[in-house]
Amino acid sequence: MKKLINTPETLLTDALDGFAAAHPGLTVDLEQRIVTRPPSPGKVALVSGGGSGHEPLHAGFVGPGMLHAACPGEVFTSPVPGQVQAATEAVHGGVGVLHVVKNYTGDVLNFALAAELLDDDDIEVATVIVDDDVAVTDSTHTAGRRGTGATVFVEKIAGAAAEAGESLAVVHELAREVNARSRSYGVALSAGTVPAVGRPGFPLGDDEMEWGVGIHGEPGRRSGPLAPARDIAAEALDAIATDMPLTGEALVMVNGMGATPLIELYAMFAEVAHWLNARGVTVSRSLVGNYVTSLDMAGCSITVMNLTPRLLDLWDAPVETPALRWGR
Amino acid sequence: MKKLINTPETLLTDALDGFAAAHPGLTVDLEQRIVTRPPSPGKVALVSGGGSGHEPLHAGFVGPGMLHAACPGEVFTSPVPGQVQAATEAVHGGVGVLHVVKNYTGDVLNFALAAELLDDDDIEVATVIVDDDVAVTDSTHTAGRRGTGATVFVEKIAGAAAEAGESLAVVHELAREVNARSRSYGVALSAGTVPAVGRPGFPLGDDEMEWGVGIHGEPGRRSGPLAPARDIAAEALDAIATDMPLTGEALVMVNGMGATPLIELYAMFAEVAHWLNARGVTVSRSLVGNYVTSLDMAGCSITVMNLTPRLLDLWDAPVETPALRWGR
Repeated sequence: MKKLINTPETLLTDALDGFAAAHPGLTVDLEQRIVTRPPSPGKVALVSGGGSGHEPLHAGFVGPGMLHAACPGEVFTSPVPGQVQAATEAVHGGVGVLHVVKNYTGDVLNFALAAELLDDDDIEVATVIVDDDVAVTDSTHTAGRRGTGATVFVEKIAGAAAEAGESLAVVHELAREVNARSRSYGVALSAGTVPAVGRPGFPLGDDEMEWGVGIHGEPGRRSGPLAPARDIAAEALDAIATDMPLTGEALVMVNGMGATPLIELYAMFAEVAHWLNARGVTVSRSLVGNYVTSLDMAGCSITVMNLTPRLLDLWDAPVETPALRWGR
Repeated sequence: MKKLINTPETLLTDALDGFAAAHPGLTVDLEQRIVTRPPSPGKVALVSGGGSGHEPLHAGFVGPGMLHAACPGEVFTSPVPGQVQAATEAVHGGVGVLHVVKNYTGDVLNFALAAELLDDDDIEVATVIVDDDVAVTDSTHTAGRRGTGATVFVEKIAGAAAEAGESLAVVHELAREVNARSRSYGVALSAGTVPAVGRPGFPLGDDEMEWGVGIHGEPGRRSGPLAPARDIAAEALDAIATDMPLTGEALVMVNGMGATPLIELYAMFAEVAHWLNARGVTVSRSLVGNYVTSLDMAGCSITVMNLTPRLLDLWDAPVETPALRWGR
């Protein structure tokens, strides 16, 4: 295992320490393991979290226009209910909190337990479960589909609605709509290595790739010979379009899994854009880069969302976080 | 070799094609291989370029507040003089153009040839050579020091001065000042693979790392056993501080080489910040992420610049490019 770390045991604390030093506008509580920005009184707050190893998700999306707080668990391990509770208490603005939860059994359970604890606090909590990955129906860590790239879309768009002063009911409904309109599919060229384990998470031959892989290296649909970018884009988009017809304007993300350089992600994005254009779908907005990673896995995921004018407006609204940042 | 590409021969064109689709506000000329934004009449324009494989450098830094044009060569290969000439002609605003050139023999030569051609055009050109890498005095591809991470600082700060309407002489002098105040040092945990070659660029044992590596995998000071993040930060910063005393406020970048995930870069940044703080240096601004990569090399580089109030102001000025983006 080759990593820029001190020890596997201290990696998360070290990374949060570095995150705090790099982003002085955010507050990192190393004891409670929560990353927060100041509460916005009278506005809905968004809290998300999950296992670490997917950076910049979630802490990189804390900031005006997106999350109020993130709760990072250990690498590939759910945050505990007390963490979620502490984060929610720290950032709520008095009018309710939306929990954004990727569909993994541990995350769903621990966020649900946190919501029960918060009920005693008189903090109203709504939860959106993100389950956009079309590759498999159930997986190693999931009942139902896995939650992957669409999490970024949910956090951005629901965050913009919260920033605009929408009620918890509206923000919650928008978050569910974004999830319902989004689908993802991922591939791996190599497995990531969990630092505490020290060896790659799954076997993959020298000329092989994994189709439909999850962001923890969960098996996908099959492994097979390494394919050209064009064929990967076509198979991924076929899987997505079979599950949800793609029409009109789309928001598209080509997301790096952690060890894939940007030159390859742009080459992939070219194929994705051509495939969609050829089928009458307009790529209205896009993200190309590392947003939902899987440690040092090589590969990418493709996420497509069918846009509406309102969702596009909320996507375009100003955002200022470490990983996503734009003005009007 | 495992990459998300169609063929090594088409990679650059495919990536530029994807870049164009992802960033419709910029113009990509696939024939001439230049990436431009519209000229700003009456303002100095900045043009940069170099071999591909270092993305987001340079095309990712084209936009208001930074570059006007980028000329990508083939992977690890200098752009040709005609490319630089075409880019300069396309974007100049009538009051001169600054060429930002990393110190590699081919780049320096081809930009100099382009400047001669432009002389006939009556376009005034000034050139800044970036040579911030303290690791080696001369290298495989260089007479003198290599140009690496400081290129981002030069392009941002000189770009802000140009945007503010400063003269070519002032923009040029600021660019030289930024280079003079910046130092870098890089390490590799694995070698990158040039697609057309198909195998890693240099040998490195399973438990080894390269100290002082260049962004084309040029040999550094030595290879040796893999060290903890803390020791890597200390040795890199010792090399930098020995060459240029660090005092007061600093702008610091921990840059990923392409295959290193963000969680590791933040862990490295924690060590860098602690080292600097312990020596009385304040980290006033920072970048943590992939900015000057080396294909799929694992590793990072550290760049430190001694700030002045004016340079800090220019760093903070608004910028809107694919890879660097903020408002006031």
